[in-house]
Amino acid sequence: MELKRYIDEKKKIIEDFLSEYFRDPIEPGIFYEAMKYSVFAGGKRLRPALCITAYEACGGSGLDILPQAAALELIHTYSLIHDDLPAMDDDDLRRGKPTNHKVYGEAIAILAGDGLLTEAFHMFSRSDKVSQTALLTAIKELSSAAGLYGMVAGQAMDIISEGKSADSKTLEFIHRNKTAALIRASVRLGGILSETDEQTLDAINQYGENIGLAFQVVDDILDIIGTTEELGKPKGSDDSKHKMTYPALYGIERSRDIASELISNALKAIQPLQDRAFWLKEIASYLLKRTN
Amino acid sequence: MELKRYIDEKKKIIEDFLSEYFRDPIEPGIFYEAMKYSVFAGGKRLRPALCITAYEACGGSGLDILPQAAALELIHTYSLIHDDLPAMDDDDLRRGKPTNHKVYGEAIAILAGDGLLTEAFHMFSRSDKVSQTALLTAIKELSSAAGLYGMVAGQAMDIISEGKSADSKTLEFIHRNKTAALIRASVRLGGILSETDEQTLDAINQYGENIGLAFQVVDDILDIIGTTEELGKPKGSDDSKHKMTYPALYGIERSRDIASELISNALKAIQPLQDRAFWLKEIASYLLKRTN
Repeated sequence: MELKRYIDEKKKIIEDFLSEYFRDPIEPGIFYEAMKYSVFAGGKRLRPALCITAYEACGGSGLDILPQAAALELIHTYSLIHDDLPAMDDDDLRRGKPTNHKVYGEAIAILAGDGLLTEAFHMFSRSDKVSQTALLTAIKELSSAAGLYGMVAGQAMDIISEGKSADSKTLEFIHRNKTAALIRASVRLGGILSETDEQTLDAINQYGENIGLAFQVVDDILDIIGTTEELGKPKGSDDSKHKMTYPALYGIERSRDIASELISNALKAIQPLQDRAFWLKEIASYLLKRTN
Repeated sequence: MELKRYIDEKKKIIEDFLSEYFRDPIEPGIFYEAMKYSVFAGGKRLRPALCITAYEACGGSGLDILPQAAALELIHTYSLIHDDLPAMDDDDLRRGKPTNHKVYGEAIAILAGDGLLTEAFHMFSRSDKVSQTALLTAIKELSSAAGLYGMVAGQAMDIISEGKSADSKTLEFIHRNKTAALIRASVRLGGILSETDEQTLDAINQYGENIGLAFQVVDDILDIIGTTEELGKPKGSDDSKHKMTYPALYGIERSRDIASELISNALKAIQPLQDRAFWLKEIASYLLKRTN
Protein backbone atom coordinates (compact mmCIF):
# COMPACT_ATOMS: atom_id res chain seq x y z
CA MET A 1 0.00 0.00 0.00
CA GLU A 2 1.28 3.45 -0.73
CA LEU A 3 1.16 6.31 1.75
CA LYS A 4 -1.66 8.19 0.05
CA ARG A 5 -3.97 5.21 0.38
CA TYR A 6 -2.87 4.65 3.98
CA ILE A 7 -3.57 8.28 4.90
CA ASP A 8 -6.88 8.30 3.03
CA GLU A 9 -7.97 5.20 4.93
CA LYS A 10 -7.15 6.77 8.31
CA LYS A 11 -8.80 9.99 7.22
CA LYS A 12 -11.97 8.13 6.32
CA ILE A 13 -12.36 6.38 9.65
CA ILE A 14 -11.83 9.70 11.46
CA GLU A 15 -14.33 11.49 9.19
CA ASP A 16 -16.87 8.73 9.77
CA PHE A 17 -16.36 8.88 13.52
CA LEU A 18 -16.74 12.68 13.57
CA SER A 19 -19.80 12.60 11.30
CA GLU A 20 -21.47 10.13 13.61
CA TYR A 21 -20.43 12.12 16.68
CA PHE A 22 -21.92 15.36 15.36
CA ARG A 23 -25.00 13.72 13.83
CA ASP A 24 -27.55 14.99 16.34
CA PRO A 25 -28.26 18.73 16.22
CA ILE A 26 -27.21 20.89 19.15
CA GLU A 27 -28.97 24.09 20.17
CA PRO A 28 -28.69 26.83 19.06
CA GLY A 29 -28.57 25.76 15.42
CA ILE A 30 -26.11 28.41 14.25
CA PHE A 31 -23.62 27.33 16.92
CA TYR A 32 -23.95 23.70 15.80
CA GLU A 33 -23.56 24.69 12.15
CA ALA A 34 -20.51 26.83 12.90
CA MET A 35 -18.73 23.96 14.66
CA LYS A 36 -19.56 21.53 11.88
CA TYR A 37 -18.51 24.02 9.21
CA SER A 38 -14.94 24.05 10.47
CA VAL A 39 -14.72 20.42 11.61
CA PHE A 40 -15.75 19.29 8.13
CA ALA A 41 -13.83 21.90 6.12
CA GLY A 42 -11.50 19.37 4.52
CA GLY A 43 -8.66 19.08 6.99
CA LYS A 44 -5.93 16.53 6.37
CA ARG A 45 -6.64 14.84 9.77
CA LEU A 46 -2.88 14.63 10.20
CA ARG A 47 -2.91 14.69 14.02
CA PRO A 48 -5.43 11.84 14.40
CA ALA A 49 -3.56 9.86 11.74
CA LEU A 50 -0.28 10.35 13.59
CA CYS A 51 -1.85 9.32 16.89
CA ILE A 52 -3.31 6.15 15.38
CA THR A 53 -0.10 5.35 13.50
CA ALA A 54 1.97 5.69 16.69
CA TYR A 55 -0.57 3.60 18.61
CA GLU A 56 -0.38 0.88 15.97
CA ALA A 57 3.42 1.05 15.92
CA CYS A 58 3.15 0.17 19.63
CA GLY A 59 1.01 -2.84 18.84
CA GLY A 60 -2.53 -1.52 19.26
CA SER A 61 -5.42 -1.37 16.83
CA GLY A 62 -6.32 2.20 15.84
CA LEU A 63 -10.06 1.54 16.07
CA ASP A 64 -9.67 1.32 19.85
CA ILE A 65 -8.62 4.95 20.18
CA LEU A 66 -10.83 6.73 17.66
CA PRO A 67 -12.35 9.11 20.25
CA GLN A 68 -8.90 10.12 21.48
CA ALA A 69 -7.49 10.57 17.97
CA ALA A 70 -10.54 12.51 16.78
CA ALA A 71 -10.37 14.78 19.85
CA LEU A 72 -7.00 16.01 18.55
CA GLU A 73 -8.75 17.19 15.43
CA LEU A 74 -11.32 19.14 17.47
CA ILE A 75 -8.48 20.90 19.28
CA HIS A 76 -6.67 21.63 16.03
CA THR A 77 -9.91 22.94 14.50
CA TYR A 78 -10.71 25.24 17.43
CA SER A 79 -7.19 26.67 17.26
CA LEU A 80 -7.62 27.51 13.56
CA ILE A 81 -10.97 29.22 14.18
CA HIS A 82 -9.50 31.39 16.94
CA ASP A 83 -6.25 32.09 15.04
CA ASP A 84 -8.23 33.37 12.07
CA LEU A 85 -10.23 35.91 14.13
CA PRO A 86 -9.89 39.62 13.27
CA ALA A 87 -8.18 40.26 16.62
CA MET A 88 -5.63 37.54 15.85
CA ASP A 89 -4.41 36.81 12.29
CA ASP A 90 -7.49 38.33 10.63
CA ASP A 91 -7.70 35.76 7.86
CA ASP A 92 -10.58 35.57 5.39
CA LEU A 93 -9.74 32.24 3.78
CA ARG A 94 -8.91 28.83 5.21
CA ARG A 95 -8.67 25.68 3.12
CA GLY A 96 -10.12 27.61 0.20
CA LYS A 97 -13.27 28.60 2.08
CA PRO A 98 -14.30 31.71 4.01
CA THR A 99 -13.09 31.51 7.61
CA ASN A 100 -15.57 30.70 10.37
CA HIS A 101 -16.10 34.28 11.56
CA LYS A 102 -16.63 35.44 7.97
CA VAL A 103 -19.60 33.09 7.74
CA TYR A 104 -21.02 33.08 11.28
CA GLY A 105 -19.70 36.31 12.80
CA GLU A 106 -17.05 36.80 15.44
CA ALA A 107 -19.11 35.96 18.51
CA ILE A 108 -20.27 32.59 17.20
CA ALA A 109 -16.77 31.82 15.89
CA ILE A 110 -15.26 32.42 19.33
CA LEU A 111 -17.93 30.23 20.91
CA ALA A 112 -17.60 27.51 18.28
CA GLY A 113 -13.90 27.39 19.18
CA ASP A 114 -14.62 27.31 22.91
CA GLY A 115 -17.20 24.58 22.36
CA LEU A 116 -14.88 22.39 20.30
CA LEU A 117 -12.05 22.72 22.80
CA THR A 118 -14.33 21.77 25.68
CA GLU A 119 -15.93 18.90 23.78
CA ALA A 120 -12.48 17.58 22.86
CA PHE A 121 -11.93 16.70 26.52
CA HIS A 122 -15.34 15.08 26.70
CA MET A 123 -14.64 13.00 23.64
CA PHE A 124 -11.16 12.13 24.84
CA SER A 125 -12.24 10.94 28.27
CA ARG A 126 -14.68 8.34 26.95
CA SER A 127 -13.20 4.91 26.46
CA ASP A 128 -13.84 1.32 27.34
CA LYS A 129 -10.72 0.15 25.50
CA VAL A 130 -7.97 2.11 27.22
CA SER A 131 -6.97 1.73 30.86
CA GLN A 132 -8.01 4.52 33.22
CA THR A 133 -4.39 5.16 34.16
CA ALA A 134 -3.40 5.62 30.52
CA LEU A 135 -6.42 7.80 29.85
CA LEU A 136 -5.69 10.16 32.75
CA THR A 137 -2.00 10.37 31.86
CA ALA A 138 -3.02 11.18 28.31
CA ILE A 139 -5.46 13.92 29.41
CA LYS A 140 -2.68 15.56 31.44
CA GLU A 141 -0.34 15.38 28.45
CA LEU A 142 -2.89 16.74 26.01
CA SER A 143 -4.03 19.63 28.22
CA SER A 144 -0.44 20.65 28.74
CA ALA A 145 0.60 20.48 25.08
CA ALA A 146 -2.54 22.27 23.88
CA GLY A 147 -2.36 25.02 26.48
CA LEU A 148 0.05 26.90 28.71
CA TYR A 149 3.02 24.72 27.87
CA GLY A 150 2.35 24.41 24.20
CA MET A 151 -0.06 25.63 21.57
CA VAL A 152 -1.78 28.58 23.24
CA ALA A 153 1.50 29.96 24.64
CA GLY A 154 3.05 29.63 21.17
CA GLN A 155 0.18 31.50 19.57
CA ALA A 156 0.50 34.26 22.19
CA MET A 157 4.21 34.63 21.44
CA ASP A 158 3.45 34.62 17.71
CA ILE A 159 0.95 37.46 18.09
CA ILE A 160 3.16 39.67 20.24
CA SER A 161 6.19 39.06 18.02
CA GLU A 162 4.56 40.30 14.81
CA GLY A 163 6.55 43.11 13.26
CA LYS A 164 9.52 42.59 15.57
CA SER A 165 12.87 41.70 14.03
CA ALA A 166 13.28 37.94 14.09
CA ASP A 167 15.58 36.27 16.59
CA SER A 168 16.23 32.56 16.62
CA LYS A 169 15.20 32.02 20.24
CA THR A 170 11.76 33.59 19.88
CA LEU A 171 11.22 31.94 16.51
CA GLU A 172 11.97 28.52 17.92
CA PHE A 173 9.70 29.15 20.92
CA ILE A 174 6.83 30.04 18.59
CA HIS A 175 7.25 27.06 16.29
CA ARG A 176 7.95 24.53 19.02
CA ASN A 177 4.87 25.57 20.94
CA LYS A 178 2.37 26.80 18.39
CA THR A 179 2.64 23.83 16.03
CA ALA A 180 5.13 21.21 17.16
CA ALA A 181 3.71 20.70 20.67
CA LEU A 182 0.35 19.33 19.47
CA ILE A 183 1.96 17.23 16.73
CA ARG A 184 4.44 15.80 19.21
CA ALA A 185 1.58 15.17 21.65
CA SER A 186 -0.37 13.39 18.91
CA VAL A 187 2.28 10.73 18.49
CA ARG A 188 3.18 10.61 22.19
CA LEU A 189 -0.47 10.02 23.04
CA GLY A 190 -0.44 7.02 20.73
CA GLY A 191 2.40 5.66 22.84
CA ILE A 192 0.86 6.61 26.17
CA LEU A 193 -2.56 5.14 25.33
CA SER A 194 -0.93 1.86 24.27
CA GLU A 195 1.03 1.79 27.55
CA THR A 196 4.23 1.13 25.67
CA ASP A 197 7.64 0.94 27.40
CA GLU A 198 9.70 4.05 28.31
CA GLN A 199 12.24 3.45 25.59
CA THR A 200 9.69 3.29 22.80
CA LEU A 201 7.87 6.33 24.21
CA ASP A 202 11.12 8.23 24.22
CA ALA A 203 11.82 7.31 20.60
CA ILE A 204 8.32 8.37 19.59
CA ASN A 205 8.71 11.57 21.54
CA GLN A 206 11.86 12.54 19.66
CA TYR A 207 10.22 11.61 16.38
CA GLY A 208 7.22 13.79 17.24
CA GLU A 209 9.30 16.76 18.30
CA ASN A 210 11.30 16.69 15.09
CA ILE A 211 8.46 16.19 12.64
CA GLY A 212 6.39 18.79 14.51
CA LEU A 213 9.04 21.45 14.05
CA ALA A 214 9.75 20.35 10.47
CA PHE A 215 6.03 20.63 9.70
CA GLN A 216 6.04 24.32 10.63
CA VAL A 217 9.29 25.09 8.82
CA VAL A 218 7.82 23.54 5.67
CA ASP A 219 4.63 25.56 6.26
CA ASP A 220 6.69 28.73 6.36
CA ILE A 221 8.39 27.79 3.08
CA LEU A 222 5.10 26.87 1.39
CA ASP A 223 3.65 30.23 2.38
CA ILE A 224 6.27 31.77 0.09
CA ILE A 225 6.60 29.29 -2.76
CA GLY A 226 3.16 27.65 -2.81
CA THR A 227 0.19 28.76 -4.89
CA THR A 228 -3.03 30.15 -3.41
CA GLU A 229 -4.84 27.18 -4.91
CA GLU A 230 -2.55 24.64 -3.26
CA LEU A 231 -2.57 26.46 0.07
CA GLY A 232 -6.26 27.32 0.22
CA LYS A 233 -5.27 30.80 1.38
CA PRO A 234 -3.32 33.70 -0.14
CA LYS A 235 0.40 33.03 -0.43
CA GLY A 236 2.80 35.44 1.25
CA SER A 237 0.42 36.08 4.14
CA ASP A 238 3.15 35.53 6.76
CA ASP A 239 5.24 38.20 5.11
CA SER A 240 2.39 40.67 4.81
CA LYS A 241 1.67 40.18 8.53
CA HIS A 242 5.38 40.51 9.37
CA LYS A 243 5.36 37.11 11.05
CA MET A 244 8.54 35.60 12.42
CA THR A 245 9.29 32.65 10.13
CA TYR A 246 12.24 30.42 9.29
CA PRO A 247 12.65 31.79 5.75
CA ALA A 248 12.50 35.36 7.11
CA LEU A 249 15.37 34.60 9.47
CA TYR A 250 17.42 32.05 7.52
CA GLY A 251 16.30 32.33 3.89
CA ILE A 252 14.54 29.58 1.90
CA GLU A 253 17.53 27.38 1.13
CA ARG A 254 18.77 27.20 4.73
CA SER A 255 15.18 26.61 5.91
CA ARG A 256 14.90 23.67 3.53
CA ASP A 257 18.10 22.24 4.97
CA ILE A 258 16.78 22.68 8.51
CA ALA A 259 13.52 20.88 7.66
CA SER A 260 15.47 18.11 5.98
CA GLU A 261 17.75 17.72 9.01
CA LEU A 262 14.79 17.60 11.38
CA ILE A 263 13.15 14.86 9.34
CA SER A 264 16.32 12.82 9.30
CA ASN A 265 16.56 13.23 13.10
CA ALA A 266 12.99 11.95 13.32
CA LEU A 267 13.78 8.93 11.18
CA LYS A 268 16.89 8.18 13.24
CA ALA A 269 14.93 8.42 16.50
CA ILE A 270 12.51 5.65 15.51
CA GLN A 271 15.15 3.39 13.96
CA PRO A 272 15.03 1.07 17.02
CA LEU A 273 11.34 0.37 16.34
CA GLN A 274 12.37 -1.28 13.05
CA ASP A 275 9.49 -2.49 10.89
CA ARG A 276 6.88 -1.33 13.37
CA ALA A 277 7.83 2.24 12.43
CA PHE A 278 7.17 1.80 8.71
CA TRP A 279 4.23 4.21 8.44
CA LEU A 280 5.72 6.70 10.87
CA LYS A 281 8.74 6.87 8.56
CA GLU A 282 6.58 7.20 5.46
CA ILE A 283 4.64 10.08 7.02
CA ALA A 284 7.84 11.86 8.07
CA SER A 285 9.24 11.70 4.55
CA TYR A 286 5.96 12.93 3.10
CA LEU A 287 5.89 15.95 5.45
CA LEU A 288 9.11 17.17 3.85
CA LYS A 289 7.79 16.84 0.29
CA ARG A 290 4.23 18.07 0.77
CA THR A 291 2.92 20.99 -1.27
CA ASN A 292 -0.08 21.88 0.88
CA MET B 1 -19.72 29.88 62.61
CA GLU B 2 -21.68 32.16 60.39
CA LEU B 3 -21.86 31.80 56.62
CA LYS B 4 -19.62 34.75 55.83
CA ARG B 5 -16.77 33.23 57.81
CA TYR B 6 -17.41 29.82 56.25
CA ILE B 7 -17.30 31.25 52.72
CA ASP B 8 -14.23 33.37 53.51
CA GLU B 9 -12.44 30.30 54.77
CA LYS B 10 -13.20 28.31 51.62
CA LYS B 11 -12.29 31.31 49.52
CA LYS B 12 -8.92 31.58 51.22
CA ILE B 13 -7.91 27.97 50.64
CA ILE B 14 -8.86 28.30 46.98
CA GLU B 15 -6.97 31.60 46.63
CA ASP B 16 -3.92 30.04 48.26
CA PHE B 17 -4.09 27.02 46.00
CA LEU B 18 -4.41 29.19 42.88
CA SER B 19 -1.60 31.53 43.98
CA GLU B 20 0.70 28.59 44.44
CA TYR B 21 -0.40 27.05 41.15
CA PHE B 22 0.34 30.22 39.18
CA ARG B 23 3.50 31.09 41.10
CA ASP B 24 6.00 30.25 38.37
CA PRO B 25 6.00 32.58 35.37
CA ILE B 26 4.87 31.26 32.01
CA GLU B 27 6.09 32.56 28.67
CA PRO B 28 5.24 34.96 27.15
CA GLY B 29 4.95 37.27 30.17
CA ILE B 30 1.96 39.26 28.94
CA PHE B 31 -0.03 36.03 28.47
CA TYR B 32 0.85 34.94 32.01
CA GLU B 33 -0.06 38.37 33.41
CA ALA B 34 -3.36 38.42 31.53
CA MET B 35 -4.41 35.06 32.97
CA LYS B 36 -3.43 36.07 36.49
CA TYR B 37 -5.16 39.43 36.14
CA SER B 38 -8.53 37.78 35.71
CA VAL B 39 -7.98 34.77 37.97
CA PHE B 40 -7.11 37.12 40.84
CA ALA B 41 -9.63 39.86 40.09
CA GLY B 42 -11.61 39.29 43.28
CA GLY B 43 -14.10 36.61 42.33
CA LYS B 44 -16.38 35.16 45.01
CA ARG B 45 -15.05 31.62 44.32
CA LEU B 46 -18.64 30.45 44.58
CA ARG B 47 -18.26 27.42 42.30
CA PRO B 48 -15.24 25.96 44.13
CA ALA B 49 -16.95 26.65 47.46
CA LEU B 50 -20.07 24.83 46.28
CA CYS B 51 -18.04 21.88 45.04
CA ILE B 52 -16.18 21.58 48.33
CA THR B 53 -19.35 22.03 50.36
CA ALA B 54 -21.13 19.30 48.43
CA TYR B 55 -18.09 17.03 48.74
CA GLU B 56 -18.02 17.58 52.50
CA ALA B 57 -21.78 17.02 52.75
CA CYS B 58 -21.01 13.60 51.25
CA GLY B 59 -18.44 12.91 53.93
CA GLY B 60 -15.17 13.96 52.29
CA SER B 61 -12.60 16.55 53.33
CA GLY B 62 -12.45 19.54 50.97
CA LEU B 63 -8.67 19.66 51.00
CA ASP B 64 -8.64 16.41 48.99
CA ILE B 65 -10.31 18.01 45.97
CA LEU B 66 -8.71 21.46 45.83
CA PRO B 67 -7.41 21.00 42.25
CA GLN B 68 -10.84 19.94 41.04
CA ALA B 69 -12.64 22.76 42.88
CA ALA B 70 -10.13 25.37 41.71
CA ALA B 71 -10.41 24.15 38.11
CA LEU B 72 -14.07 25.27 38.20
CA GLU B 73 -12.86 28.79 38.92
CA LEU B 74 -10.53 28.71 35.90
CA ILE B 75 -13.45 27.73 33.70
CA HIS B 76 -15.66 30.41 35.19
CA THR B 77 -12.88 32.99 34.72
CA TYR B 78 -12.24 32.07 31.09
CA SER B 79 -15.96 32.37 30.38
CA LEU B 80 -16.04 35.90 31.81
CA ILE B 81 -13.01 36.98 29.75
CA HIS B 82 -14.59 35.72 26.54
CA ASP B 83 -18.08 37.04 27.40
CA ASP B 84 -16.66 40.53 27.92
CA LEU B 85 -14.98 40.66 24.48
CA PRO B 86 -16.07 43.39 22.04
CA ALA B 87 -17.54 40.76 19.71
CA MET B 88 -19.61 39.37 22.59
CA ASP B 89 -21.02 41.59 25.39
CA ASP B 90 -18.43 44.35 24.83
CA ASP B 91 -18.02 45.16 28.52
CA ASP B 92 -15.40 47.58 29.83
CA LEU B 93 -15.77 46.83 33.54
CA ARG B 94 -15.83 43.60 35.52
CA ARG B 95 -15.66 43.44 39.30
CA GLY B 96 -14.87 47.15 39.34
CA LYS B 97 -11.81 46.78 37.12
CA PRO B 98 -11.19 47.18 33.39
CA THR B 99 -11.98 43.95 31.57
CA ASN B 100 -9.15 41.73 30.37
CA HIS B 101 -9.18 42.89 26.74
CA LYS B 102 -9.22 46.54 27.85
CA VAL B 103 -5.90 45.94 29.61
CA TYR B 104 -4.18 43.34 27.40
CA GLY B 105 -5.91 43.71 24.04
CA GLU B 106 -8.35 41.37 22.36
CA ALA B 107 -5.88 38.80 21.03
CA ILE B 108 -4.25 38.17 24.39
CA ALA B 109 -7.66 38.14 26.11
CA ILE B 110 -8.92 35.44 23.75
CA LEU B 111 -5.75 33.40 24.32
CA ALA B 112 -5.83 33.94 28.10
CA GLY B 113 -9.34 32.47 28.02
CA ASP B 114 -8.27 29.56 25.82
CA GLY B 115 -5.30 28.93 28.09
CA LEU B 116 -7.36 28.93 31.29
CA LEU B 117 -9.95 26.57 29.82
CA THR B 118 -7.27 24.14 28.69
CA GLU B 119 -5.36 24.35 31.96
CA ALA B 120 -8.58 23.70 33.89
CA PHE B 121 -8.62 20.17 32.50
CA HIS B 122 -4.97 19.73 33.37
CA MET B 123 -5.56 20.89 36.93
CA PHE B 124 -8.70 18.78 37.23
CA SER B 125 -7.10 15.55 36.06
CA ARG B 126 -4.36 15.58 38.70
CA SER B 127 -5.23 13.77 41.90
CA ASP B 128 -3.85 11.16 44.21
CA LYS B 129 -6.88 11.40 46.52
CA VAL B 130 -9.76 10.63 44.22
CA SER B 131 -10.32 7.30 42.47
CA GLN B 132 -9.59 7.18 38.74
CA THR B 133 -13.15 6.11 38.02
CA ALA B 134 -14.55 9.12 39.87
CA LEU B 135 -12.07 11.45 38.21
CA LEU B 136 -12.94 10.30 34.69
CA THR B 137 -16.67 10.45 35.39
CA ALA B 138 -16.15 13.97 36.73
CA ILE B 139 -14.16 15.07 33.65
CA LYS B 140 -16.99 13.86 31.41
CA GLU B 141 -19.54 15.73 33.53
CA LEU B 142 -17.52 18.95 33.61
CA SER B 143 -16.73 19.01 29.90
CA SER B 144 -20.38 18.49 29.10
CA ALA B 145 -21.69 21.16 31.49
CA ALA B 146 -19.07 23.72 30.44
CA GLY B 147 -19.51 23.14 26.73
CA LEU B 148 -22.00 21.97 24.14
CA TYR B 149 -24.60 20.86 26.66
CA GLY B 150 -24.21 23.77 29.01
CA MET B 151 -22.33 27.01 29.33
CA VAL B 152 -21.04 27.65 25.82
CA ALA B 153 -24.36 26.70 24.22
CA GLY B 154 -26.13 29.04 26.67
CA GLN B 155 -23.84 31.91 25.82
CA ALA B 156 -24.39 31.28 22.10
CA MET B 157 -28.18 31.41 22.59
CA ASP B 158 -27.79 34.55 24.72
CA ILE B 159 -25.82 36.32 21.97
CA ILE B 160 -28.18 35.42 19.14
CA SER B 161 -31.25 36.31 21.22
CA GLU B 162 -30.19 39.89 21.95
CA GLY B 163 -32.79 42.36 20.79
CA LYS B 164 -35.38 39.66 20.12
CA SER B 165 -38.63 39.77 22.07
CA ALA B 166 -38.35 37.54 25.09
CA ASP B 167 -40.04 34.17 25.19
CA SER B 168 -40.00 31.92 28.22
CA LYS B 169 -38.56 28.89 26.43
CA THR B 170 -35.52 30.70 25.05
CA LEU B 171 -35.00 32.58 28.31
CA GLU B 172 -34.97 29.37 30.29
CA PHE B 173 -32.59 27.73 27.81
CA ILE B 174 -30.15 30.63 28.20
CA HIS B 175 -30.25 30.71 31.99
CA ARG B 176 -30.21 26.95 32.48
CA ASN B 177 -27.20 26.57 30.22
CA LYS B 178 -25.22 29.77 30.50
CA THR B 179 -25.16 29.94 34.29
CA ALA B 180 -27.01 27.09 35.97
CA ALA B 181 -25.19 24.26 34.17
CA LEU B 182 -21.77 25.06 35.67
CA ILE B 183 -23.22 25.78 39.12
CA ARG B 184 -25.14 22.52 39.03
CA ALA B 185 -22.01 20.73 37.85
CA SER B 186 -20.03 22.29 40.71
CA VAL B 187 -22.19 20.63 43.34
CA ARG B 188 -22.70 17.43 41.35
CA LEU B 189 -18.93 17.08 40.98
CA GLY B 190 -18.63 17.23 44.75
CA GLY B 191 -20.96 14.26 44.88
CA ILE B 192 -19.31 12.39 42.01
CA LEU B 193 -15.79 12.86 43.37
CA SER B 194 -16.88 11.56 46.77
CA GLU B 195 -18.47 8.53 45.09
CA THR B 196 -21.65 9.06 47.03
CA ASP B 197 -24.79 6.94 46.49
CA GLU B 198 -27.26 7.61 43.66
CA GLN B 199 -29.92 8.99 45.97
CA THR B 200 -27.65 11.61 47.49
CA LEU B 201 -26.30 12.52 44.05
CA ASP B 202 -29.82 12.98 42.83
CA ALA B 203 -30.69 15.25 45.76
CA ILE B 204 -27.55 17.32 45.17
CA ASN B 205 -28.33 17.49 41.48
CA GLN B 206 -31.77 18.95 42.11
CA TYR B 207 -30.31 21.36 44.62
CA GLY B 208 -27.69 22.48 42.07
CA GLU B 209 -30.17 22.92 39.27
CA ASN B 210 -32.44 25.08 41.39
CA ILE B 211 -29.78 27.30 42.98
CA GLY B 212 -28.06 27.66 39.59
CA LEU B 213 -31.17 29.03 37.98
CA ALA B 214 -32.00 31.15 41.03
CA PHE B 215 -28.50 32.62 40.91
CA GLN B 216 -29.08 33.96 37.41
CA VAL B 217 -32.58 35.24 38.14
CA VAL B 218 -31.16 37.18 41.12
CA ASP B 219 -28.36 38.43 38.84
CA ASP B 220 -30.94 39.77 36.42
CA ILE B 221 -32.75 41.55 39.27
CA LEU B 222 -29.52 43.01 40.69
CA ASP B 223 -28.62 44.37 37.27
CA ILE B 224 -31.69 46.59 37.62
CA ILE B 225 -31.83 47.43 41.32
CA GLY B 226 -28.15 47.16 42.34
CA THR B 227 -25.65 50.00 42.40
CA THR B 228 -22.62 50.18 40.11
CA GLU B 229 -20.45 50.05 43.19
CA GLU B 230 -22.06 46.86 44.48
CA LEU B 231 -22.07 45.21 41.07
CA GLY B 232 -18.59 46.26 39.94
CA LYS B 233 -20.10 47.09 36.54
CA PRO B 234 -22.68 49.60 35.28
CA LYS B 235 -26.23 48.78 36.36
CA GLY B 236 -28.85 48.36 33.68
CA SER B 237 -26.38 46.84 31.24
CA ASP B 238 -28.70 43.92 30.38
CA ASP B 239 -31.39 46.38 29.40
CA SER B 240 -29.08 48.55 27.33
CA LYS B 241 -27.95 45.41 25.45
CA HIS B 242 -31.55 44.24 25.05
CA LYS B 243 -30.73 40.95 26.79
CA MET B 244 -33.43 38.43 27.51
CA THR B 245 -33.85 38.47 31.29
CA TYR B 246 -36.40 37.33 33.85
CA PRO B 247 -37.40 40.88 34.87
CA ALA B 248 -37.77 41.83 31.20
CA LEU B 249 -40.22 38.98 30.70
CA TYR B 250 -41.95 38.73 34.10
CA GLY B 251 -41.23 42.03 35.89
CA ILE B 252 -39.20 42.39 39.10
CA GLU B 253 -41.80 41.20 41.60
CA ARG B 254 -42.63 37.99 39.75
CA SER B 255 -38.91 37.37 39.18
CA ARG B 256 -38.32 37.65 42.92
CA ASP B 257 -41.04 35.10 43.51
CA ILE B 258 -39.50 32.75 40.95
CA ALA B 259 -36.06 33.02 42.60
CA SER B 260 -37.63 32.43 45.98
CA GLU B 261 -39.50 29.38 44.73
CA LEU B 262 -36.35 27.94 43.16
CA ILE B 263 -34.44 28.33 46.41
CA SER B 264 -37.17 26.62 48.36
CA ASN B 265 -37.12 23.75 45.84
CA ALA B 266 -33.37 23.52 46.41
CA LEU B 267 -33.81 23.36 50.17
CA LYS B 268 -36.51 20.73 49.84
CA ALA B 269 -34.33 18.60 47.57
CA ILE B 270 -31.55 18.27 50.14
CA GLN B 271 -33.86 17.75 53.12
CA PRO B 272 -33.03 14.01 53.19
CA LEU B 273 -29.37 14.84 53.80
CA GLN B 274 -30.38 16.37 57.13
CA ASP B 275 -27.52 17.93 59.11
CA ARG B 276 -24.95 17.09 56.47
CA ALA B 277 -26.62 19.67 54.25
CA PHE B 278 -26.25 22.54 56.74
CA TRP B 279 -23.84 24.68 54.68
CA LEU B 280 -25.54 23.85 51.39
CA LYS B 281 -28.73 25.26 52.89
CA GLU B 282 -26.98 28.33 54.24
CA ILE B 283 -25.47 29.06 50.84
CA ALA B 284 -28.82 28.63 49.10
CA SER B 285 -30.48 31.12 51.42
CA TYR B 286 -27.65 33.60 50.95
CA LEU B 287 -27.92 33.42 47.16
CA LEU B 288 -31.44 34.80 47.43
CA LYS B 289 -30.41 37.72 49.65
CA ARG B 290 -27.11 38.69 48.05
CA THR B 291 -26.56 42.23 46.78
CA ASN B 292 -23.61 41.53 44.48
